[in-house]
Amino acid sequence: MNIPLDPQTLAVTPGAPLSLSKRKTKIRSVYSSKKHYKGLLEEHVSELSDLQRVMYAHGKYALLLIFQGMDAAGKDGAIRHVFSGVNPQGCQVFSFKQPSSEELDHDFLWRVHKRTPERGRIGIFNRSYYEEVLIVKAEPKILDAQRLPDECRDRPNFWEERYADINHFEDYLRRNGTVTLKFFLHLSYEEQRARFLSRIDDTDKNWKLTKADIESRSSWKTFQRVYEECLTHTSTTAAPWFVIPADDKRNARLLISHVIVENLRKLPLAYPEATKAHQAELQAIRHQLEKAKAKD
Amino acid sequence: MNIPLDPQTLAVTPGAPLSLSKRKTKIRSVYSSKKHYKGLLEEHVSELSDLQRVMYAHGKYALLLIFQGMDAAGKDGAIRHVFSGVNPQGCQVFSFKQPSSEELDHDFLWRVHKRTPERGRIGIFNRSYYEEVLIVKAEPKILDAQRLPDECRDRPNFWEERYADINHFEDYLRRNGTVTLKFFLHLSYEEQRARFLSRIDDTDKNWKLTKADIESRSSWKTFQRVYEECLTHTSTTAAPWFVIPADDKRNARLLISHVIVENLRKLPLAYPEATKAHQAELQAIRHQLEKAKAKD
Repeated sequence: MNIPLDPQTLAVTPGAPLSLSKRKTKIRSVYSSKKHYKGLLEEHVSELSDLQRVMYAHGKYALLLIFQGMDAAGKDGAIRHVFSGVNPQGCQVFSFKQPSSEELDHDFLWRVHKRTPERGRIGIFNRSYYEEVLIVKAEPKILDAQRLPDECRDRPNFWEERYADINHFEDYLRRNGTVTLKFFLHLSYEEQRARFLSRIDDTDKNWKLTKADIESRSSWKTFQRVYEECLTHTSTTAAPWFVIPADDKRNARLLISHVIVENLRKLPLAYPEATKAHQAELQAIRHQLEKAKAKD
Repeated sequence: MNIPLDPQTLAVTPGAPLSLSKRKTKIRSVYSSKKHYKGLLEEHVSELSDLQRVMYAHGKYALLLIFQGMDAAGKDGAIRHVFSGVNPQGCQVFSFKQPSSEELDHDFLWRVHKRTPERGRIGIFNRSYYEEVLIVKAEPKILDAQRLPDECRDRPNFWEERYADINHFEDYLRRNGTVTLKFFLHLSYEEQRARFLSRIDDTDKNWKLTKADIESRSSWKTFQRVYEECLTHTSTTAAPWFVIPADDKRNARLLISHVIVENLRKLPLAYPEATKAHQAELQAIRHQLEKAKAKD
């Protein structure tokens, strides 16, 4: 363990109701200085990179990482800092924006299922199918765009069924070798205000702030509630949620990379062993190559 | 009803064990002559085509049709004869062959989910994800190619979980507007022999017969068993199986088209009604167009 923190303390216990107000957005830092932070992050990234190489060679497991959080919670930054040192050949990021009309013509999992990571790879979802039970649930008018038949839309347990569909999907993926870890970047209302202001003051960050961000800020309480309901219903043993205190970006990145590394370590990953037949084959090839060299 | 036969008599009752030996591969024809057959098929296709146009305009439901059966059971012919009169813009066929290495790098539903039909369309699967619980179950060595982690592959209820995953997937699709109907073309061992022979005698059909076909013929009993198990476990209210007596190709096509039409008729399909606002808009456009004509 690179930092003295049990990842389980950040997890949402399956089946237990979560209260976000009882989860801190800022905890004691796991680093003591900027230098210390850099050193720790480097250690994490380097170990993650090694584990990813074994996972790629092993070729049986895949890792799906889901990042959710309010605007300015630090999703993009966390992905950039934690994964920039990992071989991109084994790592793919998808940012889910508003669904296209082709995507809306299918069920809500369609666009994500086709982007799940291949065996041996890490798939990172910057936002995800969880938007369906977050923003769509918070503002049900958005559901109109899906053009569901009335009998489907008016089902009494519509959202409970959505949670169950997601849970089944992730459990199914787990039984087929894909491990899912989910991160909620837990930001305070005050810290979001500060970050929005800095996005106005820093012209290089202007593009990051739109009117839509301010609109969802005005529904802060609604969003905290739908997040609470979502995390409560969809944290499972197969695919747990972790609540990451996000007011300190650096600390958040260390916690995220720590959780990933600790969970990857638990998998029985190993470089494939050459069979006896393959070893013999390799020796034959060596013989041939050496003979060729002698001729040159 | 164009032919006097209740489609339910062909369905596999959900939850009840199916015995294929008790289902006939040849029943009394629903047509009395070739001319009668042609007339009936034309009627079915024409009604199917009309229903498809409404479904397309309505844009809320999709229809997924799955065709399974032994080699030479008549899957390709049925698809060709029943759907050749339907507008291909609202109708897409996918033939699932051996999975590619990209497909094997994902879970078994990945390659089919991304090909499910869009709202308003008919998707036809010539073979499907059912191959997973048919040929793969019959010859488990094929499973090696999926490179599942040992802990996933060795799960004690592996095949039961596969059935449950399929049932959940189809139920989920139904709740999102996609109706699934599944057809097992039930052929006799003797009729397959006759069709294989004609594929040898008719040089235009030579390409249709390979050594692999003869190999699966030699495992006839095994395949009948896995089909029985599959149909027993995966015929549901949301997505029923129909056992189509397939020794008479023409009769089979009439039965299939009949089942599809009868099931489509049950859906609350309708051309979208123009809202009052839209009607007013249309009148304004009419006014403009008529004025323009007056000027010419």
